[in-house]
Amino acid sequence: ANSILAGYGTTVFEVMSQLARAHDAVNLGQGFPDDRGPEDVLRAAADAVVDGSNQYPPMTGIPELRRAVAAHGKRFYGLDVDWEREVLVTSGATEGLASCLFGLIEPGDEVILFDPLYDSYLPIVRRAGGIPKLVSLEPPAWELPMDRLKAAFSDKTKLVLLNTPMNPAAKVFTRAELQEIAALLEKYDAYAVCDEVYEHIVFDGRRHESLITLPGMRERCLKIGSAGKTFSLTGWKVGYVTAVPALLQPVMRAHQFLVFTTPPNLQRAVAQGLEKDASYFTELAGGMQAKRDRLTAGLARVGFDVLPCEGTYFVNADFRPLGFKGDDEAFCKHITAEAKVAAIPVSALYAEGTVRNYARFCFAKRDEVLDEAVDRLGRYF
Amino acid sequence: ANSILAGYGTTVFEVMSQLARAHDAVNLGQGFPDDRGPEDVLRAAADAVVDGSNQYPPMTGIPELRRAVAAHGKRFYGLDVDWEREVLVTSGATEGLASCLFGLIEPGDEVILFDPLYDSYLPIVRRAGGIPKLVSLEPPAWELPMDRLKAAFSDKTKLVLLNTPMNPAAKVFTRAELQEIAALLEKYDAYAVCDEVYEHIVFDGRRHESLITLPGMRERCLKIGSAGKTFSLTGWKVGYVTAVPALLQPVMRAHQFLVFTTPPNLQRAVAQGLEKDASYFTELAGGMQAKRDRLTAGLARVGFDVLPCEGTYFVNADFRPLGFKGDDEAFCKHITAEAKVAAIPVSALYAEGTVRNYARFCFAKRDEVLDEAVDRLGRYF
Ligand SMILES: CSCCC(=O)C(=O)O
Ligand SMILES: CSCCC(=O)C(=O)O
Repeated sequence: ANSILAGYGTTVFEVMSQLARAHDAVNLGQGFPDDRGPEDVLRAAADAVVDGSNQYPPMTGIPELRRAVAAHGKRFYGLDVDWEREVLVTSGATEGLASCLFGLIEPGDEVILFDPLYDSYLPIVRRAGGIPKLVSLEPPAWELPMDRLKAAFSDKTKLVLLNTPMNPAAKVFTRAELQEIAALLEKYDAYAVCDEVYEHIVFDGRRHESLITLPGMRERCLKIGSAGKTFSLTGWKVGYVTAVPALLQPVMRAHQFLVFTTPPNLQRAVAQGLEKDASYFTELAGGMQAKRDRLTAGLARVGFDVLPCEGTYFVNADFRPLGFKGDDEAFCKHITAEAKVAAIPVSALYAEGTVRNYARFCFAKRDEVLDEAVDRLGRYF
Repeated sequence: ANSILAGYGTTVFEVMSQLARAHDAVNLGQGFPDDRGPEDVLRAAADAVVDGSNQYPPMTGIPELRRAVAAHGKRFYGLDVDWEREVLVTSGATEGLASCLFGLIEPGDEVILFDPLYDSYLPIVRRAGGIPKLVSLEPPAWELPMDRLKAAFSDKTKLVLLNTPMNPAAKVFTRAELQEIAALLEKYDAYAVCDEVYEHIVFDGRRHESLITLPGMRERCLKIGSAGKTFSLTGWKVGYVTAVPALLQPVMRAHQFLVFTTPPNLQRAVAQGLEKDASYFTELAGGMQAKRDRLTAGLARVGFDVLPCEGTYFVNADFRPLGFKGDDEAFCKHITAEAKVAAIPVSALYAEGTVRNYARFCFAKRDEVLDEAVDRLGRYF
């Protein structure tokens, strides 16, 4: 077995989902919505299976979807994107990310990552031969420590992997923070892989800012989006990468050998989804915000100390006020088995660090499900 | 850009398909069928999109499909497979292969490959840190050169990557050849990744033999199958890997970080497909055999010297009798532009070697399409 990958266990999301099934727990762990996704998009996919081609689409994605991704970039970020040369469809954002990292990293390159992080980042960076340089953000404020960020850069820095809105921190990077990152990318002639799968899930009138829109950044950023998150269809595994040809070309090389292409019927339906009018995107964020508020209030009533959530569909809650003796891993296993509510221990998403007192709860669930979870926790504690 | 991947161009299949579109040519290049796939399987996928879950399925695949893959292994090869621990669903065989290689190879490991080869093999082996050791097979007989195979093994051999039925050679490895490989795997304590995507496309009463069924090989082989090829749905990108837990575990590690999972609706439909009765599989092979005969006869009439085809959906044809001056790449471009029929130059699938006089034609097309291609070539030459 490969020694790098052998060092990692089964992803915490899978472990906790299995545990939730075993205990018949309400699963607020793994981040996926429990609703159906937009009916017209579902219908478009079903129709495309029956009426459309089920053979290999172009390796880079069907023109319809690449055009829609380019138009989406224009509409939301004012980007001028050449759909033929600057958009790549991938089998989910996870594959998009893997293709970026395998395509761009040369062994020995340094890659700056913000801790805590989505759990594929570190194994893939390392398997691709990159040297991870971690910059830790910490609750409750999740501030970007500028001194430590500067110190992480070196002449060997090839990439920054930036996730905003940031999972699990539920932080939306500010323009000022992005400007600091942009200045460092320029200074060190480095690039950024921008995982923006939660781009449409931001709250309280905030706007997601994409690093790629900052001056000079169009040539330095690869922007990754996800139909799974934008249309609540996480199982479809349709993602997209937008970047200038010089950056996207090497990513296409990796993509063509890693998976080659993505089901054309799902691509066609996602193209249709991306063309939805503004109200869809507003309602997505508004609906999620209401759910955030509902779960936050419920957890607070139970006695958790709940952190603010600016974006994503996760809230982090400090469980120490409940008097639980043990770390977050013990806590999450305990509530899954005993209260029958599953959550993710935040420390599982830290590569380093000592934060051990937060559980991450996913609120992308029907109101009854959120209420049931809160009831169960309330009865238990 | 990563220096290994940067050395490879766009896959020849994509290049020739684009050229075919540009010239409005009959595309017998890239290997995909032009029929619809089984109606009941299409219907099952469409229904599953509308009725079923569209959220993350389990990382290893839905139980229904893993059970069906295990049952398929029993039915066709007499294998006893524990579906929970020995089957992994992947986003196509290409991803299955990438997960096997990234999961199993430690940098410096030697990997034995048979030349000519499917064009993702070499870039992925190298990107995973493996040292390729090529064993060349050559037309017209495509015999396995046992002396060179033995010489390719060493104490550093980790894996053999075996594709049977073999694309583009259209060769089905014999039991005697598999026995020789098995003996070498035992002797050098090595493993085999068995790309058997054409397992059901074998002709003339031959039977596809899987290396994994040979004595001692259950613990040394990873068997890869493909719904794309078995159900003529190449766009779906649903594949499956069967192996003992000790071998499959590291592959799952790679899979969970490369793509994580595969659309559940397509998985459900493929599960249903794998349960079809024997007649489906017999008719698949029979239908393809008739097409092979049709295209072979047509190409022979045009003046090609067509090689035998034991399996896969490709025939290789020597174009020298037509008096064309130039190599196979020139020939394939020429007939795409002039005769309006696209094919793949066999040399594009050789990593090394000097064979330059064969074009590979895909016969998985409707009879009218095959006839039209032959007519066009006939009129041109
Ligand atoms: C690929 S499963 C993880 C889903 C997710 O994005 C999360 O829970 O953070
Ligand atoms: C992934 S496109 C290549 C299809 C194929 O298997 C072939 O043409 O050999």
